Amino acid sequence: MKGEQQNREIVFAERPSGTPTLDTFSMRDIGMPQPQVGEVLLKSLYISVDPGMRGFMDKGKDDGAGIRFELDKPITSRSVAQVMESRNDDLPKGTIVHGRLAWQEYQTSKPDGLEQVDPSLAPIATSVSILGVTGLAAYFGMINIGQPQKGETVVISGAAGAVGSVAAQIAKMKGCHVVGIAGSQTKIAYLEQELGLDKGVNYKAAGDLEEAIRKACPNGVDVFFDNVGGELFDAVFANINWKARIVICGQIAGYNSPDPQQGPRPQQKLIKKSARMEGFLVFDHRDRFEAAKKQLAEWYNSGDLKYRENLVEGFEKLPTAFIGLFKGENIGKQMVKVADAQ
Amino acid sequence: MKGEQQNREIVFAERPSGTPTLDTFSMRDIGMPQPQVGEVLLKSLYISVDPGMRGFMDKGKDDGAGIRFELDKPITSRSVAQVMESRNDDLPKGTIVHGRLAWQEYQTSKPDGLEQVDPSLAPIATSVSILGVTGLAAYFGMINIGQPQKGETVVISGAAGAVGSVAAQIAKMKGCHVVGIAGSQTKIAYLEQELGLDKGVNYKAAGDLEEAIRKACPNGVDVFFDNVGGELFDAVFANINWKARIVICGQIAGYNSPDPQQGPRPQQKLIKKSARMEGFLVFDHRDRFEAAKKQLAEWYNSGDLKYRENLVEGFEKLPTAFIGLFKGENIGKQMVKVADAQ
Repeated sequence: MKGEQQNREIVFAERPSGTPTLDTFSMRDIGMPQPQVGEVLLKSLYISVDPGMRGFMDKGKDDGAGIRFELDKPITSRSVAQVMESRNDDLPKGTIVHGRLAWQEYQTSKPDGLEQVDPSLAPIATSVSILGVTGLAAYFGMINIGQPQKGETVVISGAAGAVGSVAAQIAKMKGCHVVGIAGSQTKIAYLEQELGLDKGVNYKAAGDLEEAIRKACPNGVDVFFDNVGGELFDAVFANINWKARIVICGQIAGYNSPDPQQGPRPQQKLIKKSARMEGFLVFDHRDRFEAAKKQLAEWYNSGDLKYRENLVEGFEKLPTAFIGLFKGENIGKQMVKVADAQ
Repeated sequence: MKGEQQNREIVFAERPSGTPTLDTFSMRDIGMPQPQVGEVLLKSLYISVDPGMRGFMDKGKDDGAGIRFELDKPITSRSVAQVMESRNDDLPKGTIVHGRLAWQEYQTSKPDGLEQVDPSLAPIATSVSILGVTGLAAYFGMINIGQPQKGETVVISGAAGAVGSVAAQIAKMKGCHVVGIAGSQTKIAYLEQELGLDKGVNYKAAGDLEEAIRKACPNGVDVFFDNVGGELFDAVFANINWKARIVICGQIAGYNSPDPQQGPRPQQKLIKKSARMEGFLVFDHRDRFEAAKKQLAEWYNSGDLKYRENLVEGFEKLPTAFIGLFKGENIGKQMVKVADAQ
């Protein structure tokens, strides 16, 4: 009987002033919801945790994506779920969907914002990772903003991460000299041996990082796809070429600072190099999502685009999986598996 | 007799560590040069001084424009000159030319790098100001990088200056709400009454500049054409809209700092606003100079583009005219008149 099933949620318990901790979250038992007419009952299968969610935890209204976590309300993130009970003919029982869902084991939902997942195309978890916002961020950031040209040098920070590893492989496919920055020898081996990058730079072991980038990029840096920011940004920025494009995709080094970090102003160098720094949100490009997903799926299925998931099992592991993102330990996309599809 | 004529030059005497002073320069008597076959003897008529020249005084090779002043060698800048003696049939005696010339009253030159000036088109000094690099910087910066659309809000810092005043008027012609920032009430009156801007903001009298910009730009800032940098940049940047374009044209607030200034890192805001910061050098666009000059001349001759020159007379005034640029006193283009055309 459904009434006897357990349901749990994880809410936003406390606004973090720096790096989120376990106190940021609170898990509690809740009742099993009943779908209204037009709604479905969803069971969470895979839940994605992303560094960008840190921004939704800050106070204020200044966020282009329009998402703010509210205290005592469930955290939300991109999730894969299955329809367990349907009062909507478009989403029959058993359908796999993805969308921005609450951190709840079971929840009801209207169909708006849910997209169906075709399990025959690729593993269903990829719909919120390489074929979802993660892959799309890499795709639009690298292709539309970075615009890498054959023979150019492209540097990616956070290159072993979810977005970075896809961005790096796209640049390789475009015929570029691709250098990835990461923080461990395991990651460097992954970049060089598994993903086929031209060079991996371990920023923790490099000593003078600016010099290490210079050595890895003898022709300078034409495209810099930055997921990290801070001093790592500065080291790459020092090596940019004329007409360089700097894609500001993420700022994991700064997400946990309450105010904008201080650093050297980039303007004089931007002038001298006629260079461009550009930020973006993946939803800016939503009118081109379908074509991009199709391309990503082709690359993925042909093996041109390799992809690794860092899978943790258990709904209750969501907070630690999220916090782990800021420790720089994960290779590939951090996902939490909550349940198997039925 | 030519041999009896006086000739003087101003050389780069001492590398400034901050704002240039009179000690940065040294004037001395030199001999009258003799043109070789293919060369001309030029007499300087108008010499332009520009804030960007400060960058050429720094040590190092990291300058996109490739210009470095060498100690004990003459300063160079955009100048208008007249051919006094010719050993080149393409440039007969009396021809007016412009180009990057030495700070010398008389100098010989090969024809490379010299362009003829047609005195019937516009006052000859405009060839190194509104119809020269100054106007071209405003044109390419505003049109190609800022890309203002009708109804958008455009903010220009240093709006009463040489480049800023042209950029502001181009934005007005594009149908934008145009706000100019300047540092005196005289300049604000010039912006609002003479150039027809929608609003002038006196940053020295504004108190909270971020708030003043917010009031002057009720719909936020879509294009920011920045000639100044520093805290003034921060105040405008706080007000940018989604998809804002920030044209980094100049950094007069930072030119005299030996190292990049420190300031809040812009990356997180660039992401949240999907915004772009882009620097440029006018010579990046040299393949489109002729068309742009034609357009600027049309606007100038029709009266749509107003232009003011701040003219100082006397070759020996060049150092003080240059130093004055950093005091924020000039309205319009700072020029030094050395001699009349004959």
